[in-house]
Amino acid sequence: MSTKEQLERNKKNVAEFYDLIINKKDYDTANKLYIGPRYKQHNPLVKDYPEGLKEFIEFLKNNYPDARSEIIRIFAEGDYVILHVHSVRSPEEQRAIVEIFRLDEEGRIDEHWDVIQKIPATSANPNSMF
Amino acid sequence: MSTKEQLERNKKNVAEFYDLIINKKDYDTANKLYIGPRYKQHNPLVKDYPEGLKEFIEFLKNNYPDARSEIIRIFAEGDYVILHVHSVRSPEEQRAIVEIFRLDEEGRIDEHWDVIQKIPATSANPNSMF
Repeated sequence: MSTKEQLERNKKNVAEFYDLIINKKDYDTANKLYIGPRYKQHNPLVKDYPEGLKEFIEFLKNNYPDARSEIIRIFAEGDYVILHVHSVRSPEEQRAIVEIFRLDEEGRIDEHWDVIQKIPATSANPNSMF
Repeated sequence: MSTKEQLERNKKNVAEFYDLIINKKDYDTANKLYIGPRYKQHNPLVKDYPEGLKEFIEFLKNNYPDARSEIIRIFAEGDYVILHVHSVRSPEEQRAIVEIFRLDEEGRIDEHWDVIQKIPATSANPNSMF
C-alpha cells in the first residue's frame, strides 16, 4: 500500500468510525471494524481503553439521542487523522470540535485527543467558526 | 517546489508565525513575513483581516504578557497546517488548542480557525490532554 493509499484508507476508516459512534451511536460495529485494543483516551471526561469509549457512547445514547455531528474538514498525515467537526447536541448547544486520531499499521484507531468549544451566540467577525 | 517541500515550508512558516505572535507578541514582524492580505478570521472573539489579529496581539500584550504556548504536534496537508497547542496563560489558566491555518501558494497565511478548551483540574484517565 502506498503512502497516499494509506492516508486515504485512514481517512475513510476514521470518517466511518466517527459516524458509527457519534451519529449512529453503534459502539459494537465501530469496535468490531475500527477500534484497536489500546484506544488510549485523552478526552478528560472519558475513561481509558475501548471500554471507556463504550461507556461514553452509552452516555450519548441516554442523554443526547438526537445529537448529530458533521465533519467539515478532514486531514491526514503519517499515522494521524484530524477532523474539524460541527457538533449539534441540540439547537441551543452547538460546538466546534477538533478530533485527532492515531492509527496503527492495519488502520485501527489506537489513540484519541480532542478539543471542544461551545459556539458562542455572537461573533466579532462574519465568518462562522467553520 | 515539490509537494513535500511545500508542506515543510508551510509548517515552518506557521510555527515561526505562531511563535512570533503568541510568544514574542511581535505582530509587525509576523505581518511582514507571514500574514497574507486577507487573513480571514474564524475565532469568534477576534475581528476579521490582519488588523483584527493586530488588535488581538495588543490585547495579549496588555493582559497576558507572560502567556506562553508550546506546539505539541504539527500536521500539514494541501494548503492547510494544523497545530495542537498547550497554552499557558498562567499556572491556573491552561488550555488545549487546535489551530488550523490555510496558506496561499507563496506560503502566506490567509485564513485561521481554532478550537479552545480549558484543561480541567481532574481527568477520567491518566493520559493528559496531549
